[in-house]
Amino acid sequence: MKSTNVTRIEHLVPQSERWARQGHTGGVLWFTGLPASGKSTLVFGLEARLFEAGFETYAFDSTRLRQGLNKDLGYSREDRRENIRRASELAAVMAHAGLVVITGFISPYAEDRAEARVTCGAHFHEVYLDASPAACEARDSRGRYAAARDGQLRGFTGIDAPYDIPESPDFTLPTAAMPIADCLDQLTAFAISKFRPDGPG
Amino acid sequence: MKSTNVTRIEHLVPQSERWARQGHTGGVLWFTGLPASGKSTLVFGLEARLFEAGFETYAFDSTRLRQGLNKDLGYSREDRRENIRRASELAAVMAHAGLVVITGFISPYAEDRAEARVTCGAHFHEVYLDASPAACEARDSRGRYAAARDGQLRGFTGIDAPYDIPESPDFTLPTAAMPIADCLDQLTAFAISKFRPDGPG
Repeated sequence: MKSTNVTRIEHLVPQSERWARQGHTGGVLWFTGLPASGKSTLVFGLEARLFEAGFETYAFDSTRLRQGLNKDLGYSREDRRENIRRASELAAVMAHAGLVVITGFISPYAEDRAEARVTCGAHFHEVYLDASPAACEARDSRGRYAAARDGQLRGFTGIDAPYDIPESPDFTLPTAAMPIADCLDQLTAFAISKFRPDGPG
Repeated sequence: MKSTNVTRIEHLVPQSERWARQGHTGGVLWFTGLPASGKSTLVFGLEARLFEAGFETYAFDSTRLRQGLNKDLGYSREDRRENIRRASELAAVMAHAGLVVITGFISPYAEDRAEARVTCGAHFHEVYLDASPAACEARDSRGRYAAARDGQLRGFTGIDAPYDIPESPDFTLPTAAMPIADCLDQLTAFAISKFRPDGPG
């Protein structure tokens, strides 16, 4: 039997009350970019900045999810789709709980990112970490690009798997050309403008 | 390629700082019980009570997840296991974000609940909604027990699928013998004793 005709019992706490109490809306900042474009560094850095600024916030990346919720998934096209689908469902639930959710996933396929936007709803913002493949490879401390070039890693985004450059991201950050602190300054300002435009409540 | 040898970039915000600011720990209240034992009513009712008491809190139930994160799953033994696995991973992430997470799932198999406890860690509390099959059937407004008896629903917990009664739940509530308001009073007191034992911060 599959779910059919189910009655859904709803939340009794209005979204507006959650938001009023915490002084900001919930929502999702969805970071996309090549391997070593800075996603994990920046999502956890931004989480700390927003926490200091008084936000209810939480960051997670692909590495974290692949050790838990998505540990059954690999890197086939279908598994990548499911990886992003579950990540976006998780983000949507957490945003509904009031958090500013910051996610770091390569999310190479534009169609998967578009589905994530639909899942997460109005307060979703795509953040593109714009760094060239050469720049990412040059600072890849984990040696993944080299391993992919050697054929030890297959299906590696940027080498032998595609990355769809975002056509109309909500925010673009040239991470290869900017110090981390400056990236975080810009991201913090962007987040505040989206989730707490009228200042602390 | 599967995840191998990945470097995990960690949160910069210490758990203790989240807890100090919000005045309580994060954690999970895992409700288990037969269909129509009161799970969804009580998880959303408790969410409202704890929100009023100043907690960061969020409730979700099986119905909600089967419309989103778990919409690809049915009711086979394996799908039920995966349903609970993903629910517990979601609860664990949200609890790590600081929330008191309240979940409502039949979760009929003791082994699946034991895995959920491991996934969620120290601040996990199993809440057993103890109502007899007859009492649940009598108040099943959705007619599911009747449909299961007629054979229209197969694999229905309590009729033709098993329910492992919890052997050592952290809290037991006789939901068939108690008004909803009294249930919520007891649950609220239990939650406060576990997550904010020293009073508001």
